[in-house]
Amino acid sequence: MIERILIVGTGLIGASTGLALRAAGFTGSIAGFDASASELEAAQQAGAIDYFLPTRATALASAEQADVILLATPVLAILDWMQRLAPVLKPHQLVTDTGSTKRAIADQAVALFNTPTTARFLPGHPMAGKESGGAALAEATLFDGAMWLFTPVAPETNIEAEWRGWVGRFGTRSMDLDPLHHDQICAWVSHLPQMVATAMSAMFEDEFLRSPELAHEFDAIGGRALREMTRLGASPYSMWRDVAMTNTKPLAATLLALEQRLAHIRENLKTPELRDEFAKANAFRDLRR
Amino acid sequence: MIERILIVGTGLIGASTGLALRAAGFTGSIAGFDASASELEAAQQAGAIDYFLPTRATALASAEQADVILLATPVLAILDWMQRLAPVLKPHQLVTDTGSTKRAIADQAVALFNTPTTARFLPGHPMAGKESGGAALAEATLFDGAMWLFTPVAPETNIEAEWRGWVGRFGTRSMDLDPLHHDQICAWVSHLPQMVATAMSAMFEDEFLRSPELAHEFDAIGGRALREMTRLGASPYSMWRDVAMTNTKPLAATLLALEQRLAHIRENLKTPELRDEFAKANAFRDLRR
Repeated sequence: MIERILIVGTGLIGASTGLALRAAGFTGSIAGFDASASELEAAQQAGAIDYFLPTRATALASAEQADVILLATPVLAILDWMQRLAPVLKPHQLVTDTGSTKRAIADQAVALFNTPTTARFLPGHPMAGKESGGAALAEATLFDGAMWLFTPVAPETNIEAEWRGWVGRFGTRSMDLDPLHHDQICAWVSHLPQMVATAMSAMFEDEFLRSPELAHEFDAIGGRALREMTRLGASPYSMWRDVAMTNTKPLAATLLALEQRLAHIRENLKTPELRDEFAKANAFRDLRR
Repeated sequence: MIERILIVGTGLIGASTGLALRAAGFTGSIAGFDASASELEAAQQAGAIDYFLPTRATALASAEQADVILLATPVLAILDWMQRLAPVLKPHQLVTDTGSTKRAIADQAVALFNTPTTARFLPGHPMAGKESGGAALAEATLFDGAMWLFTPVAPETNIEAEWRGWVGRFGTRSMDLDPLHHDQICAWVSHLPQMVATAMSAMFEDEFLRSPELAHEFDAIGGRALREMTRLGASPYSMWRDVAMTNTKPLAATLLALEQRLAHIRENLKTPELRDEFAKANAFRDLRR
């Protein structure tokens, strides 16, 4: 029975998980740690955690008493916490995470966990978020209707099954993927859209600095398409640096493919090739209906 | 007093203008013509037009009796109708349009209209639409809160002022721009986002054809970001071909700029340059708050 949960990283995803657990009827204790004291306080004020650990050392000591430790930080910090936790945890304990990339985490899970003498590790990834992070934006319903992916690296035991049960009670659907496959798919459906939004927002910012009078006009004239294409431009570097660091090759491949596709369109603005691109794009929409 | 209006092109924008006129209290007659008989019938069934002209010849004859002729077709057809209309219209009549690009239309307006012996022409462009066209999707409120741009090429007379009054009663704001400046701004805020959505949708379609089992996963895993980045992939080639044809240079320049920006990100996935791109993108969002 999962009765004590420690959430490491009480930003948007970590704090929302705490709130979702409460909303789903979890009555055990939820402790929290975050490198930012203000995030911790915001998470506690929101009711996402019962109490918090003020330092890494006290968090590590608390982890020894937890049934489940949820790592909800950016990916590089997850990798770091995995190394701190592995030597001090016991086989009955479960570590799981919400990291955006899974290959590096799964590799380290194989190396450090899931043996008869170590704790369990179940890599996870909720496909939910907002363009701005932080516990202040946390919601119990953030995961409702969303996909919570898992990339298991060992046969399931009871505590993983119990954790999956809680995640299901958040209103999520779930799917198991090979970690490498996960990272390739997420490069397409999540990491590439982010980089496009970053590139377009940065480009507009440069245009504005060059001709400040444009800013007003862009804002007044640009409609839904512009908002959609730049919404994610507000996403924090701290999280996406780790995605770029740990999914470099798949992400670079999708970026290059898009660059080539845009160049193809640019070179064919006045030829029938443009019709073929629109036909393919239309077919993609039809397929998804 | 504007009492008889002819709408040429009764698709989404033309039919919505008819409905918006009625909703704003216009009690005169509204006739319609469209190259597609089914669009015409849908527009009449929706109440966007009172009656329709079945052929180009009858539409041209009807235009001679209209106070305002609204050209709401793709841009090349607008240019074509301008040439048909100019010789048969009288100075008291107004031709206006809803075309997505304005330089070519404004050039032709200068050449063919706005003299003491010819009709008036006021180039216009409502910044509203949907990813799918057609009279069946027309709405009286489509323009409510949207910007309706004008790129006037001659001093305003009473009938233009009256038309602007109706457009204002649709709930629009309006702004006057130089036609060339209009096309440059729209390349950034409208035409580039469309081509990005087309490129990404076409790319996904190719991926799906290559590995059909991916389609299900993309659909299940891809969230709001993917939907936003590909929504406009459903847009019709017929309209965008004309945009690409009549705004080639500005659109090619924005495409090239984005290609270079994406390449810069791709080459710096593991360097601090990525931080600078995110910082610029974050600044753009802050600016627009």
